Amino acid sequence: MMDKCKTLSLKETAKYLKGVENAVILTHSSPDGDTLGSGFALKRIIEILGGKAEVVCGDEIADKFSYLGKAAKIEDKLFCGKTIIAVDVADIKLMSGIPMEIKESTDLCIDHHISNKQYAKCLFLDSDASACCEIMFDLCKELGITPDKELASAIFTGVVTDTGCFQFTNTTPKTHIVAAELMSLGADSEFIIKLFFETKSPARLYLEKKVLENLEMHFDGKCALTTLDYETVHSENSDESELDGVAGIPRTVEGVLVGITLKGKEQGKFKISVRTHAPVDASAICARLGGGGHVRAAGCQVSGDAETAKKAILESVKKELNI
Amino acid sequence: MMDKCKTLSLKETAKYLKGVENAVILTHSSPDGDTLGSGFALKRIIEILGGKAEVVCGDEIADKFSYLGKAAKIEDKLFCGKTIIAVDVADIKLMSGIPMEIKESTDLCIDHHISNKQYAKCLFLDSDASACCEIMFDLCKELGITPDKELASAIFTGVVTDTGCFQFTNTTPKTHIVAAELMSLGADSEFIIKLFFETKSPARLYLEKKVLENLEMHFDGKCALTTLDYETVHSENSDESELDGVAGIPRTVEGVLVGITLKGKEQGKFKISVRTHAPVDASAICARLGGGGHVRAAGCQVSGDAETAKKAILESVKKELNI
Repeated sequence: MMDKCKTLSLKETAKYLKGVENAVILTHSSPDGDTLGSGFALKRIIEILGGKAEVVCGDEIADKFSYLGKAAKIEDKLFCGKTIIAVDVADIKLMSGIPMEIKESTDLCIDHHISNKQYAKCLFLDSDASACCEIMFDLCKELGITPDKELASAIFTGVVTDTGCFQFTNTTPKTHIVAAELMSLGADSEFIIKLFFETKSPARLYLEKKVLENLEMHFDGKCALTTLDYETVHSENSDESELDGVAGIPRTVEGVLVGITLKGKEQGKFKISVRTHAPVDASAICARLGGGGHVRAAGCQVSGDAETAKKAILESVKKELNI
Repeated sequence: MMDKCKTLSLKETAKYLKGVENAVILTHSSPDGDTLGSGFALKRIIEILGGKAEVVCGDEIADKFSYLGKAAKIEDKLFCGKTIIAVDVADIKLMSGIPMEIKESTDLCIDHHISNKQYAKCLFLDSDASACCEIMFDLCKELGITPDKELASAIFTGVVTDTGCFQFTNTTPKTHIVAAELMSLGADSEFIIKLFFETKSPARLYLEKKVLENLEMHFDGKCALTTLDYETVHSENSDESELDGVAGIPRTVEGVLVGITLKGKEQGKFKISVRTHAPVDASAICARLGGGGHVRAAGCQVSGDAETAKKAILESVKKELNI
């Protein structure tokens, strides 16, 4: 597929969209604010240009996203004769639930992941964009579209969720300028920020409590480790979708360079999340146990009970910290 | 004092600063990122204009602010013959630790609090500014000063801390534009955001754990209440300065309209923090128990044991929710 992918410029992408009559917009599995914000923003853009569009997702969409609009049901007739556009989807593998023949015939992909697998016939990739929604904003500019409140809110959704409300290091000066313009255009920033950053599910709070209760310090305060055992992870109070979020907590402890979360995903197996601050390499810590990832966030899996898993990961941390 | 206060425009304030030869800049007690960011930014502005300036605070300044610069020691000779300028200080009462005759002879106050008591001879007040530091940015523009990395970082500090990293509702389109410009000028946004938003003290995490452990739901999930008893608040693991921060947690529970934190400040007495979501009036809930505050954040004090305090506040919540 690789050699068939044509790279488009922003201008060419805008021109492409002007020619779209009827599109189905694909979003990625475990849908987040950026893929859905981009999907519904693009639907609105195509409609403003005089075309038709539907948004689909292979996974269930959480209720909290309902203000963005309603996704279409996946059925064969939906895709028939339509332009297929994927947004914020780096890889076909990230679209479980979408029929393979549809994913493989993606006409256009709009994305900001540098790791994009170039699976679509045409690709517009801007890896400097903090969020795919930042690209949607650029497309509006290029197309001469002034976003209304609905469109501005959809774009704002992706920008704030992908940057952790302007807290993550992918936030650029341009991200702030886009946010300023969207707020001026009437984006419902107050509602959106409250929804994603000031509201926590009972399951999230349960897991936060467990993380804090089981927090232990190692290596003179440089490493904080917590264990969520099988029973905790699978308790009726828990929700596996919240595990990623709480894995960031150990690293927030003052003075900590390595934050570790052990999660009992199956009996006798632990998934381990490692988050580091500079200069510690999280992927190197996990690589010693057969895992991998990014320099500040990585993971691995260890068999055995909690004590065995803990010992193994701490051994690797010790090597990385040179102590 | 009221009738002696002269209101200045931004232009007049800029002109005033050009005439300053030697200034002492006063910051408020319990110093935060905005008063200190403004103080050290203004010191730098006055120095760029060719004058001299020192920053002082009546309270101890936490180590984490040390990158901003070093405050001067409060001693009589420091103030002799100097221009006294207060930044981000709404009221003389908020400058404990500064000699009364100095506070009362404040020449210029630069502030963004609408509640400013007009205690200074001259006042520049911009209550639309998200932070006093946003005003420092405007002054740079007015004076034709292009902030260097140090000055941009000082201004950025106040903007991010007073807006909760662009999360609070005082964040305006202009706030984002200022942030964009400061980042482009080299403000150390990554370091500053990590320092204030990605690092928590052990005391903060201890109190968060206790808040979550003692969280109970009332009125069909509309009210979340937690109790930090005297022993918890005064434990060696705790720090009273972190109490305000954790009082926001109960309101974050999904579906909750009223979040309540009971804090055992003295034996047999509870301070109660009430945080609400629209349309519930927190000040009305507290007023029934002799307290008060704002519409979304208020407080009161109740004598008796935890059960008595809990019963009293829940009674008032019930009335406010009309159930």
